[in-house]
Amino acid sequence: MLKPNRLCAFTDGVVAIAITLLVLGLEVPSAHDVPEQELRAYLIGTLHPLLGYVSSFVLIGTYWLQHYAIFHFITRVNRILIALNGLFLLCISFVPFPTGLQAAYRDDELAIVFYGSTHIACSLSLLSLWIYATKGHRLIASDIAPNVIKSMTMRIALTPAISLAAIGVSFINISVSRFMFLAIPVLYLSHRQVDSGWIETAGGGKYSDD
Amino acid sequence: MLKPNRLCAFTDGVVAIAITLLVLGLEVPSAHDVPEQELRAYLIGTLHPLLGYVSSFVLIGTYWLQHYAIFHFITRVNRILIALNGLFLLCISFVPFPTGLQAAYRDDELAIVFYGSTHIACSLSLLSLWIYATKGHRLIASDIAPNVIKSMTMRIALTPAISLAAIGVSFINISVSRFMFLAIPVLYLSHRQVDSGWIETAGGGKYSDD
Amino acid sequence: MLKPNRLCAFTDGVVAIAITLLVLGLEVPSAHDVPEQELRAYLIGTLHPLLGYVSSFVLIGTYWLQHYAIFHFITRVNRILIALNGLFLLCISFVPFPTGLQAAYRDDELAIVFYGSTHIACSLSLLSLWIYATKGHRLIASDIAPNVIKSMTMRIALTPAISLAAIGVSFINISVSRFMFLAIPVLYLSHRQVDSGWIETAGGGKYSDD
Amino acid sequence: MLKPNRLCAFTDGVVAIAITLLVLGLEVPSAHDVPEQELRAYLIGTLHPLLGYVSSFVLIGTYWLQHYAIFHFITRVNRILIALNGLFLLCISFVPFPTGLQAAYRDDELAIVFYGSTHIACSLSLLSLWIYATKGHRLIASDIAPNVIKSMTMRIALTPAISLAAIGVSFINISVSRFMFLAIPVLYLSHRQVDSGWIETAGGGKYSDD
Repeated sequence: MLKPNRLCAFTDGVVAIAITLLVLGLEVPSAHDVPEQELRAYLIGTLHPLLGYVSSFVLIGTYWLQHYAIFHFITRVNRILIALNGLFLLCISFVPFPTGLQAAYRDDELAIVFYGSTHIACSLSLLSLWIYATKGHRLIASDIAPNVIKSMTMRIALTPAISLAAIGVSFINISVSRFMFLAIPVLYLSHRQVDSGWIETAGGGKYSDD
Repeated sequence: MLKPNRLCAFTDGVVAIAITLLVLGLEVPSAHDVPEQELRAYLIGTLHPLLGYVSSFVLIGTYWLQHYAIFHFITRVNRILIALNGLFLLCISFVPFPTGLQAAYRDDELAIVFYGSTHIACSLSLLSLWIYATKGHRLIASDIAPNVIKSMTMRIALTPAISLAAIGVSFINISVSRFMFLAIPVLYLSHRQVDSGWIETAGGGKYSDD
Repeated sequence: MLKPNRLCAFTDGVVAIAITLLVLGLEVPSAHDVPEQELRAYLIGTLHPLLGYVSSFVLIGTYWLQHYAIFHFITRVNRILIALNGLFLLCISFVPFPTGLQAAYRDDELAIVFYGSTHIACSLSLLSLWIYATKGHRLIASDIAPNVIKSMTMRIALTPAISLAAIGVSFINISVSRFMFLAIPVLYLSHRQVDSGWIETAGGGKYSDD
Repeated sequence: MLKPNRLCAFTDGVVAIAITLLVLGLEVPSAHDVPEQELRAYLIGTLHPLLGYVSSFVLIGTYWLQHYAIFHFITRVNRILIALNGLFLLCISFVPFPTGLQAAYRDDELAIVFYGSTHIACSLSLLSLWIYATKGHRLIASDIAPNVIKSMTMRIALTPAISLAAIGVSFINISVSRFMFLAIPVLYLSHRQVDSGWIETAGGGKYSDD
């Protein structure tokens, strides 16, 4: 069976590009004309797109970290896993589009619904990849303890849950809704299991997080 | 002779970028102006470019997967293989252009002819790379069975065949033609040989696809 | 604990993309219209954005080199290091935006303040990563000598110091301020310790720089 | 001393991105408006930018191949080599700009002078890297035969020579000048030494090119 190395390298490439392309959504006036707005006013007008930029950046970063953690366990790949990984990449590389739209349509809750739905799609594709790979220890080492698998599942499921809540809140208050997305990486990284899930001899749980 | 590692890494980079740049073809209104269209109308107007985006994404993904499968067998490279690989990369990195054109010229069958021709060029360059490498086991291990080689050839040849058919259909019905391209990855991935072609000791064929 | 390989590969990807995307800030007239300006006038008008381009390019290159040097010592990673590395990547991938703004707002010292602040953020995130990793030899080999660590700290701290000075000078003379940023890579690379910090058995210091 | 692996990976990333970004120079009409020109006329108007695109693509591809060949010999790096490699990357990542200009200013020989000068800069930076690394076998294995080094030098020096000639010809006939750049990859790849320079036990010369 195929080893996952080249699949991970390709995924890293796509994610790294998607995360870096986000900056192109922050417009810059032409250097060949005198800018229409004063810089101070321009920067204030950019605060809003900037929040969306940071939000998408840290969310894509979190997906990458989850992918990293998932493939720490996966020892072999098959075509279904490759298709699920492809679906994940399709969702990730799509993120700059809803990020741009929610910056342009800043008072429209539909823009947040679209933005949040994209992140639900990203995280659900990752979750289905993880569930497919771990079901009956299909593509992971046989000695991974069930509680390690369950803990990962819970943490991956956090993203679609918060995104769904943020979509709901957007109908009440769009600004609060926007900030809710930032909770995803904070909650993910604050979890002690992020480190301990990475022990070489997985399933032990004796590893003490520093 | 040169080992193919760095050539594969470079190819992965180019393909990952080409596949991720596609999203830039989905336009976003300026965040510094009030958008001209309502978001709902804007998104409906984007459905068409979106289909082209997904289509090109999954096709490039399929080429990458085929390249992955091909270089699973290739054990050494020479300058002709490098030139053929370069031709493949030229075609792949060109894909965002016809993808954008078929979105702008949505009722023009010439746009589909151009789009389809690009995909024929991508797949023929990959096919010629494979045929060159395997002829007389030139650049592959000597114990690869002829039926494994033939099966790969058939599956790579599927893409130019379907693309040609889609071009023909575009003169009758452009919408049907567009959806035909989506059949390529589905047919490719549904083939049992996708997994079994990857057994470490190629040529066996005893490997059972799960 | 996790090995830093895939983290470095991902970082390399993001930095490589950010450094290459800078060129998109150099505008090109449409090939489908007759250009408004003569080429000679156009190129003269580009000299200014070009200086900003080169400046950001060599600065990002220097950050990459420092990251390279830092991870030469780091032997393991944890979630806090990953978060600090993520912060570094966020700052790096943001650089094209202030680079574009200082090209458009060329006589505005606020543009230089914003540009310099971004570079201070880039280098401080790198510095905090280094300090976190080396404190009590937390994530580096135990035999790295304190003077090697201190020397690295000094060299990384050079960037925020010069950037801060350049921001101050911008209120007196913007042009001088711009050129000051170019001193960062020159000073960094002219240091003998750049090479000797890379000896395999770090902490020796007997290595003679050629 | 530092091993060249991560430097090569970073270089591959930058080159892969620069080569793929070229396609963004081929403009696409907005998918949200009815295009101004008919597709047939649009494609004819794109033939000229397309030639520049292909030309820059195959030239960057050739530089990458030369870099690949150079680092096949280099066994260690120091800060001067890193600085020269950085200069090479700066030139490479700049290529999309003159490529765009020569497409917009198609009848202006200054555009060709600028385009050709960029390629001279790319190849001279590569040449200086090679000369620095091989002088007194500074950064290469001690058993590389002088004739292998000299042969590589000649082949790398081909690019600035042809570029200079093309610049000269541009004052007589711009179209002929454009096609001259395409001779660089053809001549480079047609050389038997491209393969034989890659024998694992370099310096032998007994290897027979297939």
